Amino acid sequence: MNLILLFDSDFLDPEHVRLTGRRLAHVTSVHRAAVGDSLAVGVAGGRAGTGVVTSLDPLELRVTLDRDPPPPLPLTLILALPRPKVLNRVIAGATSLGVKRIHLINSWRVEKSYWKSPRLSPENLLLQSVLGLEQARDTLLPTIELHRLFRPFVESFTPSGLALVAHPPASRECPRAIDAEVTLAIGPEGGFIAQEVESLERAGFTPVSLGPRILRVETAVAALVSRLF
Amino acid sequence: MNLILLFDSDFLDPEHVRLTGRRLAHVTSVHRAAVGDSLAVGVAGGRAGTGVVTSLDPLELRVTLDRDPPPPLPLTLILALPRPKVLNRVIAGATSLGVKRIHLINSWRVEKSYWKSPRLSPENLLLQSVLGLEQARDTLLPTIELHRLFRPFVESFTPSGLALVAHPPASRECPRAIDAEVTLAIGPEGGFIAQEVESLERAGFTPVSLGPRILRVETAVAALVSRLF
Repeated sequence: MNLILLFDSDFLDPEHVRLTGRRLAHVTSVHRAAVGDSLAVGVAGGRAGTGVVTSLDPLELRVTLDRDPPPPLPLTLILALPRPKVLNRVIAGATSLGVKRIHLINSWRVEKSYWKSPRLSPENLLLQSVLGLEQARDTLLPTIELHRLFRPFVESFTPSGLALVAHPPASRECPRAIDAEVTLAIGPEGGFIAQEVESLERAGFTPVSLGPRILRVETAVAALVSRLF
Repeated sequence: MNLILLFDSDFLDPEHVRLTGRRLAHVTSVHRAAVGDSLAVGVAGGRAGTGVVTSLDPLELRVTLDRDPPPPLPLTLILALPRPKVLNRVIAGATSLGVKRIHLINSWRVEKSYWKSPRLSPENLLLQSVLGLEQARDTLLPTIELHRLFRPFVESFTPSGLALVAHPPASRECPRAIDAEVTLAIGPEGGFIAQEVESLERAGFTPVSLGPRILRVETAVAALVSRLF
């Protein structure tokens, strides 16, 4: 937790917050904060700054919000729904990289059972997003949309800017250091099937490759985002 | 498992292998292989190719090795020892990206208990490396060295090529698309302390930043590798 993310409900008045639950436990047991300590804080959707501990029980901070969060990435990320086991890491990781728009979509190689995972609850997706922001010292939550049918999603979706689909067999290399809006689609383990890639191409996506190595989705997200921006 | 990694002990003769243990279970339960199926294979430290299933019980393949593995990255990665919980992912992830030389080192912010983790056993480090190669369809195992003392390591280590240390406060941005040998050091959660960064600078390392976001080590490894190469 490199920043404590604050919500409206934490504020006692415009300059004071009281922390409870997970953040209270973290500040107490990991930061081992004492009265007078300064901690990095930020308001969800707003500015970042510093919180000075004014009381430990209850845990209260006096906050000064004097800087903007890091700039968001101009990226819309479309991900075939990952296995529940890796979903949390993927959401937190993408959020830590600055991704602000995530679509989780179905694909032939996504097992149907994945859509029943309790990890897809709004509460869990919010928690993973918060963990990503806290890691990266960011404050702006991503939007995460679920699309349980591939075809209606792709046929109705209009990509913004340069639209790319990561597809290991593609002959074109993923471009570098794009100074523009990008929409990036990443398939499931085993990749999108040929018909899905064709649907994405009809919707304006260009297949690009990251080289001969096949990466796990969480590694691929970081590698592609870092290469593109 | 996008490639089945074979070892000398698997070979019945130069063209036939028998699989046991984890790979047997995977080919049977995930690939659900039948006699006549082709699977991607590769020999540890050698070439890759195809294995045709000739028998299921015992599981035997006839292998043809007709291609080289992906080129290794010209990178030496120096990592402050990560928490045991993330060590496996970091090793498998770095290996999947093509890293062939890894040094796990001590640092002020590495908890002493991490060095006692059973995950540091040679058997586990080999398994995680194999998982990374299987993911990336590579065959060349990385070397992984452990250095339990920071200072003797840094004072005796001579970096190859461009030597960089990822340091969030650095004013210089991490360079892109380097066509040369790189040695990259990445600190623990919370970063290297100032004295450690100074020691690394004396050893020839230049501090570089990835921007205002602080990334988890597994995300940072993928982001930095992708940016550098």
